[in-house]
Amino acid sequence: MATVPSVSNSITVRLEVPARGNAVSAITTAVESSGGSVTGLDVTASGLEALRIDVTVAASSVAHGEEIVEKLRAIDGVSIGKVSDRTFLMHLGGKIEMSSKLPIRNRDDLSMIYTPGVARVCMAIAENPEDARRLTIKRNSVAVVTDGSAVLGLGNIGPAAALPVMEGKAALFKRFAGIDAWPICLDTQDTDEIVAIVKAIAPGFAGINLEDISAPRCFEIEARLREALDIPVFHDDQHGTAIVVLAALTNALKVVGKEIGDIRVVMSGAGAAGTAILKLLLAAGVEHATVADVHGVVHLGRDDLNDSLRWIAEHTNRSGRTGSLKEAVAGADVFIGVSAPNVLDGDDLATMAEQAIVFALANPDPEVDPAVARQTAAVVATGRSDFPNQINNVLVFPGVFRGLLDAQSRTVNTEMMIAAARALATTVGDDELNANYIIPSVFHKDVAKTVATAVRDAALADAQAPTPSRPTPGIVGTLDTSAFPTVKL
Amino acid sequence: MATVPSVSNSITVRLEVPARGNAVSAITTAVESSGGSVTGLDVTASGLEALRIDVTVAASSVAHGEEIVEKLRAIDGVSIGKVSDRTFLMHLGGKIEMSSKLPIRNRDDLSMIYTPGVARVCMAIAENPEDARRLTIKRNSVAVVTDGSAVLGLGNIGPAAALPVMEGKAALFKRFAGIDAWPICLDTQDTDEIVAIVKAIAPGFAGINLEDISAPRCFEIEARLREALDIPVFHDDQHGTAIVVLAALTNALKVVGKEIGDIRVVMSGAGAAGTAILKLLLAAGVEHATVADVHGVVHLGRDDLNDSLRWIAEHTNRSGRTGSLKEAVAGADVFIGVSAPNVLDGDDLATMAEQAIVFALANPDPEVDPAVARQTAAVVATGRSDFPNQINNVLVFPGVFRGLLDAQSRTVNTEMMIAAARALATTVGDDELNANYIIPSVFHKDVAKTVATAVRDAALADAQAPTPSRPTPGIVGTLDTSAFPTVKL
Repeated sequence: MATVPSVSNSITVRLEVPARGNAVSAITTAVESSGGSVTGLDVTASGLEALRIDVTVAASSVAHGEEIVEKLRAIDGVSIGKVSDRTFLMHLGGKIEMSSKLPIRNRDDLSMIYTPGVARVCMAIAENPEDARRLTIKRNSVAVVTDGSAVLGLGNIGPAAALPVMEGKAALFKRFAGIDAWPICLDTQDTDEIVAIVKAIAPGFAGINLEDISAPRCFEIEARLREALDIPVFHDDQHGTAIVVLAALTNALKVVGKEIGDIRVVMSGAGAAGTAILKLLLAAGVEHATVADVHGVVHLGRDDLNDSLRWIAEHTNRSGRTGSLKEAVAGADVFIGVSAPNVLDGDDLATMAEQAIVFALANPDPEVDPAVARQTAAVVATGRSDFPNQINNVLVFPGVFRGLLDAQSRTVNTEMMIAAARALATTVGDDELNANYIIPSVFHKDVAKTVATAVRDAALADAQAPTPSRPTPGIVGTLDTSAFPTVKL
Repeated sequence: MATVPSVSNSITVRLEVPARGNAVSAITTAVESSGGSVTGLDVTASGLEALRIDVTVAASSVAHGEEIVEKLRAIDGVSIGKVSDRTFLMHLGGKIEMSSKLPIRNRDDLSMIYTPGVARVCMAIAENPEDARRLTIKRNSVAVVTDGSAVLGLGNIGPAAALPVMEGKAALFKRFAGIDAWPICLDTQDTDEIVAIVKAIAPGFAGINLEDISAPRCFEIEARLREALDIPVFHDDQHGTAIVVLAALTNALKVVGKEIGDIRVVMSGAGAAGTAILKLLLAAGVEHATVADVHGVVHLGRDDLNDSLRWIAEHTNRSGRTGSLKEAVAGADVFIGVSAPNVLDGDDLATMAEQAIVFALANPDPEVDPAVARQTAAVVATGRSDFPNQINNVLVFPGVFRGLLDAQSRTVNTEMMIAAARALATTVGDDELNANYIIPSVFHKDVAKTVATAVRDAALADAQAPTPSRPTPGIVGTLDTSAFPTVKL
């Protein structure tokens, strides 16, 4: 696959050139002949002798950006000024901030927001702890918790280096679902300690989004926190991915006219995401699944099975296959990869059933070249934004948490996740659905709302979810909106 | 002390009255004759027969508000609608939120803020951890950490009920110092666990503000965290109070013409705030201090001394006094109370030295009635906003943290606190200084900036403080501002 210029490798170069007729075209030619894309150009000063120009260029890598600068430097008479990196510039000082919803203009404001007025609000919550969901930020707050052990594709880079991702996640929570999320980057990778910490910080949050925590610790951490806490705990790398995959598969099956109970699914990857996808597919009706990891097909005869792999072996591979992934895909209706680049090629895909579906989700390099996959498969999806059908968690986590928070849910379960996936699938109308559009853009305006409504309804239907809290004695009724607290009369 | 109507006990009453000439005055008369203050009145609908009126009233307590409503109900022909509590209304849904600094409008924005672009930012921090202070929210973030064990004067009400105070604190951090603070309310009161948790969450913050944690645990927690962390840890209940007291005392001594090394100070209260005030006063030059707690003057002969009281006994009371607080104040130049209401009366104060200074800081009811104190003392200060000279931590913590963050300080020490106090004292000019104005309003525009500058300079002068981080290799130089990152050329 050719690497294409991307704004995420975008630089702005300030240069001065002699004032002559082809000054600008010499610059744009130098950029484009080096394989860069000009995305902006400003003449910021011009004189009789020289022009000062800021040119913004999308490159395909940092090294490519440096090549382009060298090409610019070679222009006759040019002088290169500073070169800035647009991505770094956006991250400078962090991407999120805390804001006060209320002005604090004078002593009266202060006496209501802070002491002495705040004391009555505190006492109301002390008397009725559920009031924290009405009278504090808990109502709309999510902690984005990581230990930095499995950040993007970067691995175990630690909590400080993970912070830019968690900030980005928090920004997306707000952008797509109006949720106030705050990053909590933990300087420990001890399972017991992480569980204890998240339990301890829970009072201020209505949900916990676990992020980029490596397997198998992520399974135990999530399970223990779900058991301990009265707010939903959601490991996005597992369940966010699983929900988008189920939504995409639902629509892909419509495109090829197959039923979920009939298909044979082969998966590559048995890590956190792979296991979560498998479990959700089984819960949603897949009957025939086979999983391969780096050692080949998972089956009960293998002597290297940990708890998680044993669970997979017991719940998949009914026909008792052994051997390699390449052997397993023969005749399969669906391939789902959450593993490593280029584990399959076009010849392998040619052995799949007619109207095959291929989700090759390894990032940035998929399990099989999507251009090749499209030669044989009926539907192809990847994790990349530069191909059709991007499987992107951003489609899911904002709406899922919005729904959970709106329901004041104490938990998140498989039914809610299936509801989220089905709702996401419906955002692609039957008239729009085709092999290149099985899943909407993250900027599709209905996505978060549709997912949120479905999750909220599923959460309210769940026995564990309480009715959203009622006004408390002492603060009853409303003035003119239902959210307006009043004193007892 | 008479309790006066306060906006913090403010209610809005919706009522309908027959349309007649004295409709409005009947309402305002009913409020004022009940001892309430009308702070706003809107006719929100009027017809031939009736008017609908929203009247906002400051009461002196919740019960008083209910009395006023009953008085309104007695007006001929009136019908009372909903009654809302303005303070609860302001707290509804919480007082702070998380905001994204950047728009996320399209796929290009997403690719720079989140994946794939964010990966390069993460790797820069992984390679040079100090870059977290340039490229993430760490630069400007403070955790407001409590275990809810000593909230305001309310006691051990727990983490959820403490959240409204922590939100208010966060809002004040932003309002007065532009700092992004987030509340962390801990569901544990175990010292070891609190220390472990705060250590673990530290990577995402540039400072820790401990809040409303009870003594003596607060001393150990703060000491261990200062030892363990490379960011400043500041228990506001101790040091914020101590700094304001030192600032106020500095100016009060100017008013009465006494020198800090000559005065005899008697304190009531040996808890967290009292101990911190004592230590700061000793560091600032007080030579003669005596402290009393509920069992009387602290001296080495007492058999109930814990570590903290023993420290006090060893560092105060040179003349070896025993006996009661009332006995100790005789002849004292300064009384500082951080203890309980009404432990002294006018007769006690009459035994103090000429030109006595009295800081009676117990809230809401001071150690001595300030109206009585002013009959004998030259300068009187309280913690209340309805008397002159309010000793209020809001004067200190925003500026202190602003200065620490600007210096990228790894610590906060006594020198920085004394610098903060001296700077705060200077915000009252010599031409303004008088017995009723020894300390500025929290809304005085120079306060936070003046304190911040002094703390920043003291922190930069401190050997432990690193030079604010330089651009890293790979992201060097600037385009047109010093904060603009650039790629290597």
